[in-house]
Amino acid sequence: MPAFQTIRWSDEKVCAIIIDQTLLPQGFREIEIATLDAMFEAIKQLKVRGAPAIGVAAAYGVVLGLQNAENVENARSADTLENLKKQALAGIEKLASSRPTAVNLFWALDRMRKKITSFVGAEENFKNALLDEAKKIHAEDAALCERISENGAALIKSGMRILTHCNAGALATAGRGTAVGVITKAFEQGKKIEVFVDETRPLLQGARLTAWELSQANIPYTLITDNMSAHCFQQGFIDAVIVGADRIAGNGDTANKIGTLNVAILAKHFSVPFYVAAPFSTFDLKIQTGAEIPIEQRNPAEIKRFRDAITAPENAKVYNPAFDVTPAEFISAFITEAGVIKPPFAESIKEFLGNIEQ
Amino acid sequence: MPAFQTIRWSDEKVCAIIIDQTLLPQGFREIEIATLDAMFEAIKQLKVRGAPAIGVAAAYGVVLGLQNAENVENARSADTLENLKKQALAGIEKLASSRPTAVNLFWALDRMRKKITSFVGAEENFKNALLDEAKKIHAEDAALCERISENGAALIKSGMRILTHCNAGALATAGRGTAVGVITKAFEQGKKIEVFVDETRPLLQGARLTAWELSQANIPYTLITDNMSAHCFQQGFIDAVIVGADRIAGNGDTANKIGTLNVAILAKHFSVPFYVAAPFSTFDLKIQTGAEIPIEQRNPAEIKRFRDAITAPENAKVYNPAFDVTPAEFISAFITEAGVIKPPFAESIKEFLGNIEQ
Repeated sequence: MPAFQTIRWSDEKVCAIIIDQTLLPQGFREIEIATLDAMFEAIKQLKVRGAPAIGVAAAYGVVLGLQNAENVENARSADTLENLKKQALAGIEKLASSRPTAVNLFWALDRMRKKITSFVGAEENFKNALLDEAKKIHAEDAALCERISENGAALIKSGMRILTHCNAGALATAGRGTAVGVITKAFEQGKKIEVFVDETRPLLQGARLTAWELSQANIPYTLITDNMSAHCFQQGFIDAVIVGADRIAGNGDTANKIGTLNVAILAKHFSVPFYVAAPFSTFDLKIQTGAEIPIEQRNPAEIKRFRDAITAPENAKVYNPAFDVTPAEFISAFITEAGVIKPPFAESIKEFLGNIEQ
Repeated sequence: MPAFQTIRWSDEKVCAIIIDQTLLPQGFREIEIATLDAMFEAIKQLKVRGAPAIGVAAAYGVVLGLQNAENVENARSADTLENLKKQALAGIEKLASSRPTAVNLFWALDRMRKKITSFVGAEENFKNALLDEAKKIHAEDAALCERISENGAALIKSGMRILTHCNAGALATAGRGTAVGVITKAFEQGKKIEVFVDETRPLLQGARLTAWELSQANIPYTLITDNMSAHCFQQGFIDAVIVGADRIAGNGDTANKIGTLNVAILAKHFSVPFYVAAPFSTFDLKIQTGAEIPIEQRNPAEIKRFRDAITAPENAKVYNPAFDVTPAEFISAFITEAGVIKPPFAESIKEFLGNIEQ
């Protein structure tokens, strides 16, 4: 298990505490998030990121949205519980607008919504009930990571060299991660592995976060720029690819960090297996194909500057999609908490998730 | 034609003057290169880069290697011409070690070597003879760019959206460029085109140099990170790819900036034509396949930092090849000064270049 906590709840300080991931690897700093607005901004600015982690963060955000309500309105209104519910639901609306692609965000907020609307009891217990639900989502995610990692590690043989893109590690979840969780689990099982880390432009989650996590875990890795992957495949350096996911459609089409599609097409070309590690909460059976997944467009400044350095003409027109969609045909298997899902996905995904209430 | 000169010779100052490309696009600064050692460092540090431009730069470097000889040794030695020749040939050895992949460097140095060994005449004319040869190589490159650009522009239809990688523009040559030359020529012919510019990590020649050149020429372009190309192909944004080359083997295998292979495989997957624009001097018929092309490995710091910003853990292991080799099967055609070379390349390249003395 990682030696750090991406997100935790402090009962003492009544706030969430997150690692500000925008500062890694230069600085390791935890920040206290005490309001819903602060959580909204932390998610939007990628201080906390990764599909499972933003689900957990958003759940705590809903609780934080009640801080004022509890302190101020609680005592002076006859219909306090109804007001609190309204306020909590409004908080959900706001948090849902923070990032459009990762479905875990909406999944976690749906769970909080159900808790809100179904709550019956004394108004003074309402916030605690929501906090309990958020903590439950949090603890469940950590447990899911373990099961995904166990299931994935079974696919990893000693001696394998694994490419991963972006960061689907402990920093992206409440546990040991999904794609990186598989890697750390295999390593802890004594398998000799080496990791190739795509730096993952523009925000360098691979170079800044995955490389940092692997350093912490003493797992051998080599950092490359995203455009070196074809050369590495060609040289025979890569035996498998494992990535995370932000949303998986019913047919297996998978939205993940921009650049995932490049790697997937190359992996297929070079006959290297391409695995997607993700919990059931990342599957969105409401949509049939990847064409229905909205792709977040981000600020052009992310490409035109790096910190203080200007990297392109000021007036450059920039296209900055945060994600791409990998068609199911490029995916060898999904690694989930319930096992490995193999093609044909349209059938196998339904079989695995059919009984899950979405 | 571009409004700037990547490299020029000053008869007045008796030195070469180059644009320091490491400062673009933030700063435009010309620097005087007055010694062979300074030219060696300028090439090594990519102040001047691009296969054809470093050929020209190296030719002037040979001349600069005689500066001391002329001033100091000239008058006091009986065998001055022989000494001068020795000194010039030693300069060639040094310059040849600056960068291993681009064959134009060796081609230009070979021309200078022939000039040196074949020179007969008064010693005071020796340096001028070499300077004349360097100026000839320089002027020829500008003319070649025009012909390559004319030949390539014939392939470009109005409305086309063209992806290019790295910088094979005026900044990479002594003229309007090769791949970017085709683009600017088509634009000047009144064709409505749009360019997608790969930023080209790690040194961002696309973002810093190609985007800057296209801005100067008022050609519409969109800057993307290298890992966005698959998404752009998938969305139908790209109608053709044009890149330059650093060395082309007899069978058509092509070394070019790292990341070119990624784009080539994607272009083939998405059935988009992939063109390589380069002069004959980039073809190396001494080698049969790309397997024989040495790949320059560069400093890990290029990936771990950008200017002052740290982008990865200090102790990260990094792999930093400057080039990759695209197998001929991914190349639709070569655009040269003598016309467009089409597959099968093993035969067609020999046919086109057969009569050229290499």
